[in-house]
Amino acid sequence: MASEFDLIRRHFSRPTRHTDLAGGDDAALWRVAPGHQLVVSVDMLVEGRHFFADTDARDLGWKSLAVNVSDIAAMGAAPRWALLALALPEADEAWLAAFADGFYACAEAFDVDLAGGDTTRGPRNLSITICGEVPTGTAIRRDGARAGDDLWVSGQPGRAALALWHLRDHLPLAAPHRDACLAALHRPQPRTDLGPALRGIASAMLDVSDGLLGDLGHILDASGVGAEIDAARLPEALLVDACADAARARLACLSGGDDYELLFTAPAERRADIDALSQRLALPLHRIGHITPPTQGLRLREADGTAVPLTRNGFDHFTG
Amino acid sequence: MASEFDLIRRHFSRPTRHTDLAGGDDAALWRVAPGHQLVVSVDMLVEGRHFFADTDARDLGWKSLAVNVSDIAAMGAAPRWALLALALPEADEAWLAAFADGFYACAEAFDVDLAGGDTTRGPRNLSITICGEVPTGTAIRRDGARAGDDLWVSGQPGRAALALWHLRDHLPLAAPHRDACLAALHRPQPRTDLGPALRGIASAMLDVSDGLLGDLGHILDASGVGAEIDAARLPEALLVDACADAARARLACLSGGDDYELLFTAPAERRADIDALSQRLALPLHRIGHITPPTQGLRLREADGTAVPLTRNGFDHFTG
Repeated sequence: MASEFDLIRRHFSRPTRHTDLAGGDDAALWRVAPGHQLVVSVDMLVEGRHFFADTDARDLGWKSLAVNVSDIAAMGAAPRWALLALALPEADEAWLAAFADGFYACAEAFDVDLAGGDTTRGPRNLSITICGEVPTGTAIRRDGARAGDDLWVSGQPGRAALALWHLRDHLPLAAPHRDACLAALHRPQPRTDLGPALRGIASAMLDVSDGLLGDLGHILDASGVGAEIDAARLPEALLVDACADAARARLACLSGGDDYELLFTAPAERRADIDALSQRLALPLHRIGHITPPTQGLRLREADGTAVPLTRNGFDHFTG
Repeated sequence: MASEFDLIRRHFSRPTRHTDLAGGDDAALWRVAPGHQLVVSVDMLVEGRHFFADTDARDLGWKSLAVNVSDIAAMGAAPRWALLALALPEADEAWLAAFADGFYACAEAFDVDLAGGDTTRGPRNLSITICGEVPTGTAIRRDGARAGDDLWVSGQPGRAALALWHLRDHLPLAAPHRDACLAALHRPQPRTDLGPALRGIASAMLDVSDGLLGDLGHILDASGVGAEIDAARLPEALLVDACADAARARLACLSGGDDYELLFTAPAERRADIDALSQRLALPLHRIGHITPPTQGLRLREADGTAVPLTRNGFDHFTG
């Protein structure tokens, strides 16, 4: 057992950049930059629930870290360190090598040190702790949205949902979009450039993991506000092109999870700053609505001007 | 599902002392003291391997945190924050309430904030991340032992092993000692006063989780040294009293795990400081041997002056 799991550990012993001591002692030693808070999150992924036994191990390695990196970006912080605790039914060398490859590819892409961990035998379970840094007092939380703020979303929400429906339900996807949708699902790109750049601009922010409406609900709850989404401003064109089904495209955009785009609010007077940021990062930033007083709840303003009340899980006429 | 697991989370939402933001956002926010390094460890505990389905949930809550706190103490650091990621086959309210009680009892005893976590359905698995602080550059690592240093152990190693043998193999234990042995096994007391007090005194340190000899081996490997243990100085008297079996007592003392005492080395000129510390903390500190050049390996000097080579797993004539 010991030597078998020593072998496993060797897959996770690459050099670090932000770490004074990564392994080989009772604990790791990290140095947080002066004047910074530590930003910390943990995520537990269970086989059969969050991923399947036949999930590509390289994709799983990438995604299990990427979704955690996204949590740090969503606070406006820079990711620095990850810990990986891993339970495996057996030491499957090929699986491990592939998982480690994907994990480190993501770590290197987003400048994260794997700086500690644990390995044990057991039903397959990945517990990833991610830590980042943010200048003290500047983290972008969920509770800062105010009535009148604009509502923004980054990039292209909805592609991961189209990919999932493609794989699970054989939803046809047009060839030029299929790979991009599958990549969004399997290799999400956390918005680590955008998140920190929105410090001092965004009033509230989170990453879209469960769907735009559901996650927007967390901002509304935490901030005590409502919101109105402007249907004409939703980035649906590419989704419609991909699946040739406007209703599906809207469902993917508003209720599809797993894209890890950033959803944020900002005062209207920051529009020019946000448009400039979009240019600088070469990343579309869509102003999809605005924050309202809490009494107005969550509504969708259709192109014809009618306002449809929304539940946070989507539209009854789509999902019913 | 969601509401069921929301219920779970309510068991783990007590106030924090060292934490700017513990929950309810993408990540927690912690402030590390200026001039300090962060000390970080993670431990994954799997049902059927690290604990059993019928383990008392209160004891499990205590111990799962205590063994992690011990890792921080063993670096000479102060524990501050814990994250708990928990997979459970179902939301068993009584089990959760008891587990949370034990966990928080330990957290309060050692001044640790539960400052983040995750909960999911799955085969029972506890992944605990512990973080502490240490003044930069002062952590006590495993690699600082030098030939000529004294070898010390705190408290009473061996009691947890006697308790395990009592429960598993019906080893009779004398009544006055039985409860203390069971408490050592179920409610280990990490040495959070001693660990930080040894900064600037100890040259190497770790906590005894797998047995004194085995863990001493980690110091010898990391420091590139050997060691000689003086049999007459081993704290065996209480163990012999408890089990009335000198051979068992020695095996418990040298190879029994799970006591979480601190094993450390220090230059001989610090003996008076260490004895004074023992007085101040009302904690026995036993000078059980000394560090040697690496060529001498690991030896036990018997009371009659003969030297017995040791393997790190114990004595062949005990375990064979």
